[in-house]
Amino acid sequence: MNEKWLYKIDDLKLDNEELLVNETIFHNANGYLGVRSNFEEGYPEGYDTIRGSYINGFYDIAEMKQAEKLCGMAEEKQTMLNVADGQTIRLTIDGKSFSMFEGTVLESSRWLDMQAGYTARRVLWRSPEGKEAEIVIKRMASFTRLPLFFMDYQVTPVNFEGVLELESVHQGNVKNYCNPNDPRVAGESFQHLIPDHADLQEGVSYLFTNTASSGLQVCTAVKNVISRGEETEPVIRDHCAVQKFRVLAEKGERITLRKYMIFADSVRYDELFSKAREEMEQAVSVPVEQLYQEQKEYLDRFWESSALEIDGDDHLCAAVRYNQYQLIQSVGKDPHSNIAAKGLSGEGYEGHYFWDTEMYMQPFFTLTNPEISRNLVEYRYAILDEARENAKILGHKKGAAYPWRTIMGKECSGFFPAGSAQYHISGDIAYSTVSYYLVTKDLDFMAEKGAEIIFETARMWMDLGCYYKGTFQLHEVTGPDEYTCLVSNNYYTNLNAQYNLHWAVKLYRLLKEAGKLDKVAEKIHLTEDEIEEFERAEKAMYLPYDEELGINPQDDSFLKKEVWDLENTPKENFPLLLHYHPMYIYRYQVCKQADTVLAHFIFEDAQDLETIRRSFAYYEKVTTHDSSLSTCIYSIVASRLGMADKAYEYFGDSAKLDLYNTHQNTKDGIHTANMGGNYMAIVYGFGGFRLKESGAWFAPALPKQWEGYRFKLIYEGSHIQVEVNREGCRFTLESGHPVEIHVYGKACVLQDSLAFALA
Amino acid sequence: MNEKWLYKIDDLKLDNEELLVNETIFHNANGYLGVRSNFEEGYPEGYDTIRGSYINGFYDIAEMKQAEKLCGMAEEKQTMLNVADGQTIRLTIDGKSFSMFEGTVLESSRWLDMQAGYTARRVLWRSPEGKEAEIVIKRMASFTRLPLFFMDYQVTPVNFEGVLELESVHQGNVKNYCNPNDPRVAGESFQHLIPDHADLQEGVSYLFTNTASSGLQVCTAVKNVISRGEETEPVIRDHCAVQKFRVLAEKGERITLRKYMIFADSVRYDELFSKAREEMEQAVSVPVEQLYQEQKEYLDRFWESSALEIDGDDHLCAAVRYNQYQLIQSVGKDPHSNIAAKGLSGEGYEGHYFWDTEMYMQPFFTLTNPEISRNLVEYRYAILDEARENAKILGHKKGAAYPWRTIMGKECSGFFPAGSAQYHISGDIAYSTVSYYLVTKDLDFMAEKGAEIIFETARMWMDLGCYYKGTFQLHEVTGPDEYTCLVSNNYYTNLNAQYNLHWAVKLYRLLKEAGKLDKVAEKIHLTEDEIEEFERAEKAMYLPYDEELGINPQDDSFLKKEVWDLENTPKENFPLLLHYHPMYIYRYQVCKQADTVLAHFIFEDAQDLETIRRSFAYYEKVTTHDSSLSTCIYSIVASRLGMADKAYEYFGDSAKLDLYNTHQNTKDGIHTANMGGNYMAIVYGFGGFRLKESGAWFAPALPKQWEGYRFKLIYEGSHIQVEVNREGCRFTLESGHPVEIHVYGKACVLQDSLAFALA
Repeated sequence: MNEKWLYKIDDLKLDNEELLVNETIFHNANGYLGVRSNFEEGYPEGYDTIRGSYINGFYDIAEMKQAEKLCGMAEEKQTMLNVADGQTIRLTIDGKSFSMFEGTVLESSRWLDMQAGYTARRVLWRSPEGKEAEIVIKRMASFTRLPLFFMDYQVTPVNFEGVLELESVHQGNVKNYCNPNDPRVAGESFQHLIPDHADLQEGVSYLFTNTASSGLQVCTAVKNVISRGEETEPVIRDHCAVQKFRVLAEKGERITLRKYMIFADSVRYDELFSKAREEMEQAVSVPVEQLYQEQKEYLDRFWESSALEIDGDDHLCAAVRYNQYQLIQSVGKDPHSNIAAKGLSGEGYEGHYFWDTEMYMQPFFTLTNPEISRNLVEYRYAILDEARENAKILGHKKGAAYPWRTIMGKECSGFFPAGSAQYHISGDIAYSTVSYYLVTKDLDFMAEKGAEIIFETARMWMDLGCYYKGTFQLHEVTGPDEYTCLVSNNYYTNLNAQYNLHWAVKLYRLLKEAGKLDKVAEKIHLTEDEIEEFERAEKAMYLPYDEELGINPQDDSFLKKEVWDLENTPKENFPLLLHYHPMYIYRYQVCKQADTVLAHFIFEDAQDLETIRRSFAYYEKVTTHDSSLSTCIYSIVASRLGMADKAYEYFGDSAKLDLYNTHQNTKDGIHTANMGGNYMAIVYGFGGFRLKESGAWFAPALPKQWEGYRFKLIYEGSHIQVEVNREGCRFTLESGHPVEIHVYGKACVLQDSLAFALA
Repeated sequence: MNEKWLYKIDDLKLDNEELLVNETIFHNANGYLGVRSNFEEGYPEGYDTIRGSYINGFYDIAEMKQAEKLCGMAEEKQTMLNVADGQTIRLTIDGKSFSMFEGTVLESSRWLDMQAGYTARRVLWRSPEGKEAEIVIKRMASFTRLPLFFMDYQVTPVNFEGVLELESVHQGNVKNYCNPNDPRVAGESFQHLIPDHADLQEGVSYLFTNTASSGLQVCTAVKNVISRGEETEPVIRDHCAVQKFRVLAEKGERITLRKYMIFADSVRYDELFSKAREEMEQAVSVPVEQLYQEQKEYLDRFWESSALEIDGDDHLCAAVRYNQYQLIQSVGKDPHSNIAAKGLSGEGYEGHYFWDTEMYMQPFFTLTNPEISRNLVEYRYAILDEARENAKILGHKKGAAYPWRTIMGKECSGFFPAGSAQYHISGDIAYSTVSYYLVTKDLDFMAEKGAEIIFETARMWMDLGCYYKGTFQLHEVTGPDEYTCLVSNNYYTNLNAQYNLHWAVKLYRLLKEAGKLDKVAEKIHLTEDEIEEFERAEKAMYLPYDEELGINPQDDSFLKKEVWDLENTPKENFPLLLHYHPMYIYRYQVCKQADTVLAHFIFEDAQDLETIRRSFAYYEKVTTHDSSLSTCIYSIVASRLGMADKAYEYFGDSAKLDLYNTHQNTKDGIHTANMGGNYMAIVYGFGGFRLKESGAWFAPALPKQWEGYRFKLIYEGSHIQVEVNREGCRFTLESGHPVEIHVYGKACVLQDSLAFALA
């Protein structure tokens, strides 16, 4: 085991809160399935647990009643389902059930090996009768066989010879977790999964389960293989399969139970049974070592392309690596799925996809794994028809408006002022589609899919906006900052729409030149006249600016409002959204998160640096960072402004959010967007990276707390390593053709390597 | 019967829609109880009916789940209850059940006698066997004995001698009407009333019923008295009392069943049983003629003080009178109740009280029945503590914010952008409290109750508003027009707050001068400093004005938005709120109802007449009048601007709304606010009446469609009649001391009478 790749806890605490957090922290996922890290044997009665297994993009429809009916408002939502549980394995040692809560735990630890791609728990346990055994359990969600979840359960009698009994359970009667007091998880328990039928073939139990409303089906299959001993046939009763094993084990003899579990769902597969059987047969037929080897090789490639090393702060380095690992665990690998706000680690936000993907997580993939980034665009393309329908629901005569939160494309936000009104999500999707293009220059993909997204969102802006005294304005939208809703001319949104319109025009021309325009233009009846309208609106886009303060107001009314007295707000009243009526919050200058400051990062060329500096200083004073999407952006912009200490301070706040449970809700799942933002704070912040129409820009700086750092990215197909240390910064072309990059504002061609002094 | 006081329909139609509408139109109410006019014998199976009896201010708590939980948002609401049904009387003629849907209806009619105060139905019916009988049923909700509902059921055999059987039912197992497809009535059926116990004493059935959640109780009592014949004792089973009668009636002999029903609820009464028994005893002990006589005398006084006659249009005159009658039927007569949006005629809007009371209905009572107007203020005073609590819920550090819709004072609006954000309701309540004072000069009442309301609402404005560049601004409020929500500086709201602050200051000084200030000032810790702050904010109040158009914008952003293309909006897409997403509507210049135009009426001195004229022309083009509160205001302002034809056109639209069911929802109840607005369109519109700090102002005009009109009002205790005809206008002091009035801008003292040529 290489310590560098390990996140490890020794001497496990057994208080409920810690257990819940670790269920999240040590969950296993591969972008298709995710399994929380519950104890196989369970907790004692009365303990709260979120015992969950999830499939990305697999959902049921849940009722979402509006207190008052209003035209066009969503009254149902998709919700990610907790599917069949295969975690349970109960161990009995000479008749005594193993539990960490009874007997004596002599040694214990849990770890995640980010190079090997598994989690493990090791316990040296002494039964009340004095019998000592070592228990080591490894769990893995295979990156190379997405439907496969694998458990390797090993028991070794230490000071005795005796009977080990193992009971492996495959439970199809499961429900989602509910907590009526927390707005961030489901408030009601509902039977979303209806058992259909079960089957037993060649020792494999198959459970077929239907969703209550969405018409979907899932098949789970489990096979247990014991190294030695007697076994019963699995018995299936009430949609639950149980198989028992019995071994008279010698002292020092390691007994191993391998549990293979396959998930196959009807979103992806037509024939669930044959898919499950085939995957199971393949998994069982290869040596276990091969499963581990495949996993490691996948991750070797991942780390090779996305390595990010920090010298001088091992803890931070590990936290950053942990965040990257969670991103690859969370991201969907097919066009049916995306990245949920909590990945596949918990039920917070019900498995919904937000703008977080495009603006906080996709950049990581765009720069290091463009094929995954493309897949994220493909997902948005797959729901483009739903976005068109959503635009109609919102009243628009044309175009596409992406839903604020969704799984399969329909809007799942029940409160439009802080939901559907965040039209910027459509611009964000266009932005990230353009980013994918800027990195790959893959014009064929744009012709096939990307451009259609950009044209249709551009159309939506045209219908949403209107001209007033020669400027193009956007009314009744909500920017990223949800502490101010339904405003006129949100600076971020207007820039975001402008960028969208700009690229609609530009792509139209690029495709036309390349002779690749016709298919999409014909499909959506796009005309030259429309392109001219786009261009006119782009040029006329109104961008609020306050002469007196010399800053960009967040929106037309923002600066007229009273400044919230943050200094005299009691600590326990944060986050504000849980303690003040939304309308009251709207009435003040107070921001949940970066909004104009985000605009200054994403669209930095729209404004001169001095304005950005004043803006930063102004908004910093009124921002609570109640959202986990905020500090990374402040860090990046502080870096841009040369405020190294501040940049580092904001960066430090966010890197360990989940590992230290600083938001107190890690039990509901990891904060994937924060993890992506954390990556951005290094690459875009300290590294000064920008992806522009004019190319790739770098302006590295070195936080004084570090000795150095290194990161890699793939630009126009070429692999580039960037190293920064006290001597300076060095760019190395690891593979691919020479590329032009900009360093500290100067264009240069990277052939082998280039070195610069730090600016 | 005097035709002038009659609303009558002959040859009754039996289609379901007409039956439902007539249930509303002919309902009986007295401000305490209301009973819809269902057929006593019911309709055939499959017919929809809203068989309801209601008590003003009697409610249960219903769940109102928010699609997304947000701090401070109402998650339960009060809902008016359908209480025990006493309407049912079944008649059998020689074994054949009477039904309008069987046999032959030879003659039929229904009428409301607005002088006598009862409704009636007369049917000449021939049974399938050819037996003809005349059935006349009168129903009355007593104005002098509020708990009493009385039915007078008469049957006369016309061409036969035979057995008449009557079955009178007192049904305690009832539910509210529900219609899941209509946002304006409850969407779910819920058992709000739980039978407690029943009792039978001296032939009176008593049913005691509890509410499910609000902890209230109601006792209903029924006694039947037949003119001749055999009777059974009432039998009570399953919370339902049935009493049967049997008479061998001669040809031409009128048999009468009198049914007395008493409603006693725990909102008002401590001892329900003794209250019900006492009221029943008193009702039964007097001759029926006396009940009728009392009713007529009450109404004589009502019509005497509020008479409004139109010469030259009898239909219109009847409609206007019908509207006034509904207002006296609907208005609560104690501080526990107010006027529901649908009066006591149906379940639309769940019996909630809105700003409709203060701005549309209370003026009628203030001018004609000041003691009822005072009671409406007392109701608002009674819920002042709840309004203080509501202000806290909305985040305010001080003051009172009245709920947008309520029964007992807690907010029942589930969608705050078009609900609680309508802060103007607090100013409206202050305004109508001032109006009561201006008419009565009752400073003692202000010292005792009125001023506290005005001070506390003024405090709320201080907390809500903020200074920006020397002006006092109000952000994130919604004006009367719900097609634009959460705006900055709504012109109506800012004026409304200014008026409230102005009167807080003025009343403080008036009370101080009169030595009546201390009690209230001490109670609420009101200081001279606060009064100075009020005055400073009043003077600094920002009132948006557009130099280019020379009009007051509805709010800061309104004029920047695109004008909705009303001309090309399909007719079936009105009202817009049922066909477009609210956010889409917000994005356009389009008004559901008068907003700035209402401000120009209520606060006309805030702006010169030419601005008002331009404003009127501007807003007229963007107003859909989707609300029933709109056209009357346009009519009044058109009158003010001398646009006689337009004023008449707008007036005509609204007078007969319910009688002609023009909004297609009269089945859910009458539109009380429209009825009050209709009165205002005559007195304030054509009569040019204004109640100002400087006194009573008149400027009568005569619509060319009329020969003349007359109305009465009580000003400073003096009864004044105003007559307008082609010769001119005449003001007569009918009783009381001489008063100063202003006619066409000129002050004069009214001693006996004054005559003027029309201006």
